[in-house]
Amino acid sequence: MNSQDNQPSIARVRDYFHDLQTRLCDAITAVDASADFSSQEIATPGGGMAMPRVLDDGKEIERGAVQFSHSIGDSLPAAASERNSHLAGRRYEATAISMIMHPRNPYAPTCHANLRFFLVDAEHWHFGGGFDLTPYYPFAEDVLHWHRTAAQACRPFGEDLYARFKQWCDEYFYLPHRDEPRGVGGIFLDDWNQDGFAQSLALITSIGEQILPAYLPILQKRITMPYGEREREFQLYRRGRYAEFNLAIDRGTRYGMQSGHRIESVLASMPPMATWKYDWQPEAGSPEAVLYDDYLKPRDWLTELSPGQGDAGL
Amino acid sequence: MNSQDNQPSIARVRDYFHDLQTRLCDAITAVDASADFSSQEIATPGGGMAMPRVLDDGKEIERGAVQFSHSIGDSLPAAASERNSHLAGRRYEATAISMIMHPRNPYAPTCHANLRFFLVDAEHWHFGGGFDLTPYYPFAEDVLHWHRTAAQACRPFGEDLYARFKQWCDEYFYLPHRDEPRGVGGIFLDDWNQDGFAQSLALITSIGEQILPAYLPILQKRITMPYGEREREFQLYRRGRYAEFNLAIDRGTRYGMQSGHRIESVLASMPPMATWKYDWQPEAGSPEAVLYDDYLKPRDWLTELSPGQGDAGL
Repeated sequence: MNSQDNQPSIARVRDYFHDLQTRLCDAITAVDASADFSSQEIATPGGGMAMPRVLDDGKEIERGAVQFSHSIGDSLPAAASERNSHLAGRRYEATAISMIMHPRNPYAPTCHANLRFFLVDAEHWHFGGGFDLTPYYPFAEDVLHWHRTAAQACRPFGEDLYARFKQWCDEYFYLPHRDEPRGVGGIFLDDWNQDGFAQSLALITSIGEQILPAYLPILQKRITMPYGEREREFQLYRRGRYAEFNLAIDRGTRYGMQSGHRIESVLASMPPMATWKYDWQPEAGSPEAVLYDDYLKPRDWLTELSPGQGDAGL
Repeated sequence: MNSQDNQPSIARVRDYFHDLQTRLCDAITAVDASADFSSQEIATPGGGMAMPRVLDDGKEIERGAVQFSHSIGDSLPAAASERNSHLAGRRYEATAISMIMHPRNPYAPTCHANLRFFLVDAEHWHFGGGFDLTPYYPFAEDVLHWHRTAAQACRPFGEDLYARFKQWCDEYFYLPHRDEPRGVGGIFLDDWNQDGFAQSLALITSIGEQILPAYLPILQKRITMPYGEREREFQLYRRGRYAEFNLAIDRGTRYGMQSGHRIESVLASMPPMATWKYDWQPEAGSPEAVLYDDYLKPRDWLTELSPGQGDAGL
């Protein structure tokens, strides 16, 4: 690799994220022909740009959002660089892409993915991101496929990476007030700047390129399954947990809410509809109980699961 | 008043709150005969007791909760007494009652009331609480009645109290990320220990006794109004704001979530169902726009409104 390649470049990451946004939207539209993503280009201070692309009330995707942003800041807030307080006041740039899909069919899981890059100078930059899955009626083969694809994205960059990122994901997507994981996890990393820029970008790209292979086969398989009022009701109830996580726990959402970012972009990740019931518990042995008993716990999916075992809802 | 009366007494406040809980539930049941409040007595550490009474899926009240608690603590956490750090480690007691009603009919507003008392010793105690109203399709006469009743509760205790508590309420029930009040407010006070215990308890009692006179006439009048899909849809959308406030902003809810309190009690205030739409705006001149244009701003309701003026939804 030549030194040019290893020079941190906001343009290279930005262009990759922006292109990925188009491909993610196109791929979702290919599954749900009704998916008409909005496309708004919003100028942000200092010459940055945000492009939220959101879809409400599609035939298969009840709410979907694929958002790209490139931010330029004149002066890094002290709070943003606690571990590097000497960076306060410095110019910085950041770019990010995020995707969230809330399918209508309760058998199809909600998918979240996010990639981001933060740059002050050649010495001070980092990547973050990952993807995680939130099923309502989980299938062992889907969870296996999801985690196998996640592991595949990490493998070229280190034998231990998937296990580390999987645990990081379990720790982050967790509702302490419920002592409950948000879903079945995936991979998550933050403050990543190991082995140089080129290698870090290659890792992030590898993760970005596995978002669709991880999710689309699950989405396509599950949206054709017939379901009734019972499954819809449980999906809406569990989406309440998603709302709790986003509004009360998620650092990104809370930062966006507190820092005066465009609120409709920040909350585009919210479920389109959610319910709360008082003191509700799934009936023992029911398909709903399977979610709690077998899936809402951090497990070593790749070694513990086999396809067709312990499915819910069938 | 004799000195006995002015001796801070947890028992006196606790007994009043507990009795008020029964009367609030009974009064709601008289309006909605289907309102079958659960009644669970939960022992809490140190000899305290919590009694959440919750109603799910009533005919008129879609979700209602009237909760009483008496807490006893061996050692006051430092964080709980920032302004009085010398109290850290002291034994304390607290008692509280809260009520929240989410009616099914979109013309009937959501009502929230809360009263609380905190006691360390004869010198260190305070009351807090109040009530606030969140209409979907507001009526000038309802908002006037609500605030007149609130003013009436305060008047015997000082000419300026209503105005102070009304402003406090506007400041507290506010969504900064939306730059939007939660509803049309009411009254709110905190850390209140003026004019001695007896006088403070009398004020809190006066507020407690006005909860039903403030809300019931509005509830009774509005639950008989016919409504359609459009009104229901707007109610669910606006309930999204309620969920945002409770989960992301409200200090009480956030404290309850973070301190490991029984989560089903803490979140019994959540709306039974809520929706989020992307970048939605009411149509200019529509009944939905009336809420935003005329009611979701702090106003001096008592001097600015007259009955029948500027009603929404008719």
